[in-house]
Amino acid sequence: MKVIKNPPAADWAALCQRPTASFEDILPNIRNIFQTVQQEGDRALQAYTLQFDQVKIDQIKVTEQKISEAAVQLSEDLKQAISIAYQNIRTFHEAQRTETVDVETQTGVRCWQEKYPIEKVGLYIPGGTAPLFSTVLMLAIPAQVAGCREIVLCSPPQNNGQIAPEVLYTAALCGVTKIFMVGGAQAIAAMSLGTASVPKVDKIFGPGNQYVTAAKQYASQGRVAIDMPAGPSEVLIAVDASADPSFVAADLLSQAEHGVDSQVLLVTTAAAAIPAIEKALTQQLAALKRKDIAAVALENSSIICFDSHQTAIAFINTYAPEHYIINVENTAEYVAGVRHAGSVFVGPFTPESAGDYASGTNHTLPTNGFARQYSGVNLDSFQKAITFQEITPEGIQNLGPAVEAMAQAEGLDAHKNAVSVRLKSLS
Amino acid sequence: MKVIKNPPAADWAALCQRPTASFEDILPNIRNIFQTVQQEGDRALQAYTLQFDQVKIDQIKVTEQKISEAAVQLSEDLKQAISIAYQNIRTFHEAQRTETVDVETQTGVRCWQEKYPIEKVGLYIPGGTAPLFSTVLMLAIPAQVAGCREIVLCSPPQNNGQIAPEVLYTAALCGVTKIFMVGGAQAIAAMSLGTASVPKVDKIFGPGNQYVTAAKQYASQGRVAIDMPAGPSEVLIAVDASADPSFVAADLLSQAEHGVDSQVLLVTTAAAAIPAIEKALTQQLAALKRKDIAAVALENSSIICFDSHQTAIAFINTYAPEHYIINVENTAEYVAGVRHAGSVFVGPFTPESAGDYASGTNHTLPTNGFARQYSGVNLDSFQKAITFQEITPEGIQNLGPAVEAMAQAEGLDAHKNAVSVRLKSLS
Repeated sequence: MKVIKNPPAADWAALCQRPTASFEDILPNIRNIFQTVQQEGDRALQAYTLQFDQVKIDQIKVTEQKISEAAVQLSEDLKQAISIAYQNIRTFHEAQRTETVDVETQTGVRCWQEKYPIEKVGLYIPGGTAPLFSTVLMLAIPAQVAGCREIVLCSPPQNNGQIAPEVLYTAALCGVTKIFMVGGAQAIAAMSLGTASVPKVDKIFGPGNQYVTAAKQYASQGRVAIDMPAGPSEVLIAVDASADPSFVAADLLSQAEHGVDSQVLLVTTAAAAIPAIEKALTQQLAALKRKDIAAVALENSSIICFDSHQTAIAFINTYAPEHYIINVENTAEYVAGVRHAGSVFVGPFTPESAGDYASGTNHTLPTNGFARQYSGVNLDSFQKAITFQEITPEGIQNLGPAVEAMAQAEGLDAHKNAVSVRLKSLS
Repeated sequence: MKVIKNPPAADWAALCQRPTASFEDILPNIRNIFQTVQQEGDRALQAYTLQFDQVKIDQIKVTEQKISEAAVQLSEDLKQAISIAYQNIRTFHEAQRTETVDVETQTGVRCWQEKYPIEKVGLYIPGGTAPLFSTVLMLAIPAQVAGCREIVLCSPPQNNGQIAPEVLYTAALCGVTKIFMVGGAQAIAAMSLGTASVPKVDKIFGPGNQYVTAAKQYASQGRVAIDMPAGPSEVLIAVDASADPSFVAADLLSQAEHGVDSQVLLVTTAAAAIPAIEKALTQQLAALKRKDIAAVALENSSIICFDSHQTAIAFINTYAPEHYIINVENTAEYVAGVRHAGSVFVGPFTPESAGDYASGTNHTLPTNGFARQYSGVNLDSFQKAITFQEITPEGIQNLGPAVEAMAQAEGLDAHKNAVSVRLKSLS
């Protein structure tokens, strides 16, 4: 890791720069996939799965039997762990329910706001070597709590031509209503457009490679809503002299092992403690299965030292990290300073992995500085707010003249007249 | 208006179809404008304003003096009306504040969620013949309530080379921090990229023509967030035999006068009452300033009759109207049936214009069926939620084994190790 001491504020923007992904060059491919899925439906999904995943699938929809068989393939320990995670995530997302907002803004003018579930949601779960059942928990539980009627899950087949049993088991546990073995941009196209097998959904969630991300962006242009723009995962760890170097090293590595493009930043007010962290990093790295990936990610990563906590906090808000670990003595100062972050891990015994899996918070979070303007996935991501108003005869007499004056000033006399005819009927 | 009786469900999708806008043909223009603004900054904004608005602007930023002069140009009546609207809108949006969500999901595992204002927001207010100061209220008040630090407003000059005093006055009232006289796609580019005058913002709100809408979509690809996809305004009015025909006609016209592409639908369970509504329409239309526009919009509009309320309600949810007026005797049944709508107007004395201006609800709402998955603008549109977690030594001992098991099953051993080093330190 590069070490940078007291960078001046003028350098912060460059230090906070992430690799920018442009999808312009793959957009023609994406458009083509959408067109083909539109025209050929399930046949296109089968053809793309053969082409991209080298798997011939006869039936895209995973059968009830396959799903119930998955349970026996998981160890009791893992099922128990998933059950603990399920409970915690469910508890935290249920606590996010809001009451109806209901106010009389003026006598006789009642306004209220009510949340409704988004009816049909699509969850994308990437394939690859590791079965990402934790992402199933993070997306399906809030969908279930919100009361979404149709919860569709798409995931590509693994090399063995199957979806991992961990994914199937977790999906069933979380009330996913339909599971389809299809991945990539073609899965996003299927959920955006609908095919004979795959229902058209209202909103698509979940991570994926550059094709999936580009397809979600493309789909969001006038077809469906999406959770948020996606980019490589990131962690920023703030430490001082009090931090245990082995904890810090372990947290850095748990982000670095995600991929060679993982973004890892260490911000410290204790330059003297850096060698001990570097030593722990070297030791722990050697023992990792994914050490080659983690090593590359670390090479692109930086340790940034600041003399003052205030400057460190200001820099951290400029970076707007997806994951932000606060491992300092005075956590209160850092917590109070938070302005832009996805999810924050407070104190020495709160590793990011706790939130990645089981503490209760969501792990689908804004990357690439988008924590400035986007929330991580939460209960509201699966709901929409509808407003209502009801005005009594007395209410329209109170409010009407103001509406008439404003409509007239905007030159919209039919707007004015909709009030006037009512006032006239009351006089 | 066309009259359609008891359309079978198979025809509903076609009846619910809105004109689809594709921006693919104007996208090269938009990309070009963004590039020019990126390279030439304020000079580009001045050149585009001369080209598109035929106005030469020396200074893009509206001066404090101009803003304070605006107040004297408004009548006391109008200022009084704006003040009533301001109070009601502020009351309803303040009531949308949520408490911190704070739960202990397991002993020693505390998770909480806190809302933060989006720091810098950009509001776009279209120009044209009518000064849309009501949209200033609808966007700037929730921004002010949320506590956004920078509230930027862009609006093109009118023919007289100025922004309307109503817009300037309302902006000042609502705490807008900077006003710029620039419109169109170049204004969206300026707020997305930043220039010497115009700050780069985090999220852009507001309506506009097809260039503004396409520019917002383009900007939302990896630069800024936007409020929602935009389309022509719509109303669906549900009536039965109890509805006063003059109220219904006035409500239909108040939507139709917006533009020739306005979407107006009347759903009725009382076919016998249609002639009276048509008669009232003809009478009221003749008296309107914008009758030519309204007449065209009405020609493209339909009256749909259903024998049963249940079928009417099911159809209305299929349409997912932006504005939904319920003018029937049994309003409770229709309110209970709402699944997808932007804003709902309940009862005979609740015209859409009340909510357009002053009842308290927001008028920036999802069109084109997007009420299925998007909320209208509300307080949360100007906030983001950040989650936190803090785990005690006891907490990590409770939770840790589950995290270890799950990380191992996903093949991420550095994730597991971040827990293991902590558990080891405690044993």
